[in-house]
Amino acid sequence: MRHTIIASVENKFGVLARIAGMFSGRGFNIDNLNVGPTMNPSMSRMTIVVRGDDKVLEQVTRQLEKLVDVIDVKDIRDEEHVDRELVLLRLRAGSETRAEIIQICEIFRAKIVDVQPAKLIVELTGAEDKIAQFLELMEPFGIEDLIRTGKVALARGK
Amino acid sequence: MRHTIIASVENKFGVLARIAGMFSGRGFNIDNLNVGPTMNPSMSRMTIVVRGDDKVLEQVTRQLEKLVDVIDVKDIRDEEHVDRELVLLRLRAGSETRAEIIQICEIFRAKIVDVQPAKLIVELTGAEDKIAQFLELMEPFGIEDLIRTGKVALARGK
Repeated sequence: MRHTIIASVENKFGVLARIAGMFSGRGFNIDNLNVGPTMNPSMSRMTIVVRGDDKVLEQVTRQLEKLVDVIDVKDIRDEEHVDRELVLLRLRAGSETRAEIIQICEIFRAKIVDVQPAKLIVELTGAEDKIAQFLELMEPFGIEDLIRTGKVALARGK
Repeated sequence: MRHTIIASVENKFGVLARIAGMFSGRGFNIDNLNVGPTMNPSMSRMTIVVRGDDKVLEQVTRQLEKLVDVIDVKDIRDEEHVDRELVLLRLRAGSETRAEIIQICEIFRAKIVDVQPAKLIVELTGAEDKIAQFLELMEPFGIEDLIRTGKVALARGK
């Protein structure tokens, strides 16, 4: 079972290490993790995607909430939200394949952010299934390298 | 001084906790951190943005390289690269301000991903300065909440 948790934390030294340690100590493998700034410079926000048992996760969430540096913790199943991920990929692309790649990028609203004689770098954002589909289509052209941010989620608000 | 480090690591239990612990143990505060999947399911990639002294960072990088689970470590100053970040923000937007917000979004190639009677969720990707500019323009409308992935970087390749 996969869970996405959003934690607002104090932007302090060692907080990430403590939180990551708590998950690994409980046997959760972290699939994705993001820590980034918010509008408030003293606060960071973490999006954590973990796999694990529902009950144990509830315990961990409660333990997180008890940490001094943790301001609040949300399991985003509980709320309507938008989630997105960003991927950058470097493709092999010569004069014979470039046109076809560009065509697929247009369909997916992917942006070409760098061009070289035999390479392209493409930027794509979307939910997980869109990204998976795009990668499947790009694979035959030759993906030299890629990097993904992991999912971030924002509640729709009431 | 800010540094961006890319580390390829084994996708194993506890790796993140060890790496985060090493940075905090050495007095580096992590500004942004991303861990996400790669094409190879047994490998994850981390993008870490830290503030700290050049010399100490070199030591930490060398120590990281010695960890069994770390496959390789790059300081991206050493290579030409593309970097991007993804931001989701929820704005207050009623009928009087919506048109103006949409106009600014078009200029920045930001996407509107959710609309409600008094709110909009906007998705933007770009380098740090573009995102900073956009947030500055959006601030007067009222940013209710936002989440950023933190920077990811991909080498242009030779």
